[in-house]
Amino acid sequence: MTAPILTPDELEAALRAIGAERYHIHHPFHHLLHEGRLGKGQVQAWALNRYYYQASIPAKDASLLARLPTPELRREWRRRLEDHDGDGTHPGGVERWLALTDGLGLDRDYVVSQRGLLPATRFAVDAYVRFVRERTLLEAIASSLTEMFSPAIISQRVSGMLRNYDFVSEATLAYFKPRLTQAPQDVDFALGYVKTHATTVETQQAVLDALRFKCDLLWAQLDALHFAYVAPGLPPPGAFIPEDVAGGGAR
Amino acid sequence: MTAPILTPDELEAALRAIGAERYHIHHPFHHLLHEGRLGKGQVQAWALNRYYYQASIPAKDASLLARLPTPELRREWRRRLEDHDGDGTHPGGVERWLALTDGLGLDRDYVVSQRGLLPATRFAVDAYVRFVRERTLLEAIASSLTEMFSPAIISQRVSGMLRNYDFVSEATLAYFKPRLTQAPQDVDFALGYVKTHATTVETQQAVLDALRFKCDLLWAQLDALHFAYVAPGLPPPGAFIPEDVAGGGAR
Repeated sequence: MTAPILTPDELEAALRAIGAERYHIHHPFHHLLHEGRLGKGQVQAWALNRYYYQASIPAKDASLLARLPTPELRREWRRRLEDHDGDGTHPGGVERWLALTDGLGLDRDYVVSQRGLLPATRFAVDAYVRFVRERTLLEAIASSLTEMFSPAIISQRVSGMLRNYDFVSEATLAYFKPRLTQAPQDVDFALGYVKTHATTVETQQAVLDALRFKCDLLWAQLDALHFAYVAPGLPPPGAFIPEDVAGGGAR
Repeated sequence: MTAPILTPDELEAALRAIGAERYHIHHPFHHLLHEGRLGKGQVQAWALNRYYYQASIPAKDASLLARLPTPELRREWRRRLEDHDGDGTHPGGVERWLALTDGLGLDRDYVVSQRGLLPATRFAVDAYVRFVRERTLLEAIASSLTEMFSPAIISQRVSGMLRNYDFVSEATLAYFKPRLTQAPQDVDFALGYVKTHATTVETQQAVLDALRFKCDLLWAQLDALHFAYVAPGLPPPGAFIPEDVAGGGAR
């Protein structure tokens, strides 16, 4: 029953195997999204809910930053905050996500207010922020490693959405392009850190569990969207109701 | 825009109105459950996931107990812990819930291990435990007030399940009977406390929000069950797969 100690490369392979099984690129809602099989209201619901995830990323990175012990490590992680929060001149990821919700015709105040959020989105995202705040530094860093898999899902999303939706443009999708270079840079550091520091059976299993946890919460967010807005299509009380199904408020 | 200050009875009426709109007695999964329209595997999935909620209730009650300022208040809340954890002779609610999962043919070690749990169940239940730990005492107590509505849902569940499922017996459902007397006793105290202490617009709105939050997390648990095991029927990677759909592991 005891797991063997893995070499650094075996650990990386085990991490990649988790992505191959559990990353949300395999979720049916992602397939519907990039294949153009969603209506505008369903794409709005995705962008609205995903905003809460985007807006929470700097909070989780800040709490990780606060626990890092050296200037070198903190500088590396501070770059993530700049990527998401911007520098006051160039917009960061949170601002660029709002360009997406703007472009989809959602009222910005409504998006930022989180009033129409699915409760399940909040529960999953908050679980991530708390995980990073409370677990070991190694587990917190490992939970960021879904970025190993994000260039693939972003490429599918961007090319598929541009091809398939007339209400989406390159400007609307401006969030994603910088992520294609930022994410690999993030991964270089985080994967290196994990491969260097997870050298016991216990820490290696903790690292693998952290990545499973992260995959699960990305997956759960799409589950909730699929349930509420695709099939069976039952938004919970108080959640966003797209205009193109207004009146059909399923209850 | 400013809400008026409510009289204690108006506050109670506003709390009951939230239940009328948002309590999970209105959720389609509940209807399927008590109407006998689920298969045994789907009922197992419900009991397995709900176990995590049951098992977490004493943790949330203990953290509330730890913050109560007087012997009188602590005695009142300590009774809830006895109801759920038992006294070493008489089984408590957690043990009685395991009689239900036993009766449904689930392996007890598997249930207790939480290995097959839906991640969304964990996120929702953990959000509840943390809410009670971190919010004001008044909000924490108010979040227990879904018990105002629980006798109705329990009556529907018990009578419906006994009538409609040959794999369910009175012994299997032993969890529920004591709850029909315990819950109203809990409510007498908690509702009285809230009506006495929530006397400003701000605290009254906080109390109403706390009950909405609690309804949302009960609702989200049934959303996740419905999505994974009914429609579209896509259990997330790693979650419980009922034997009666084994091989059909939808992905």
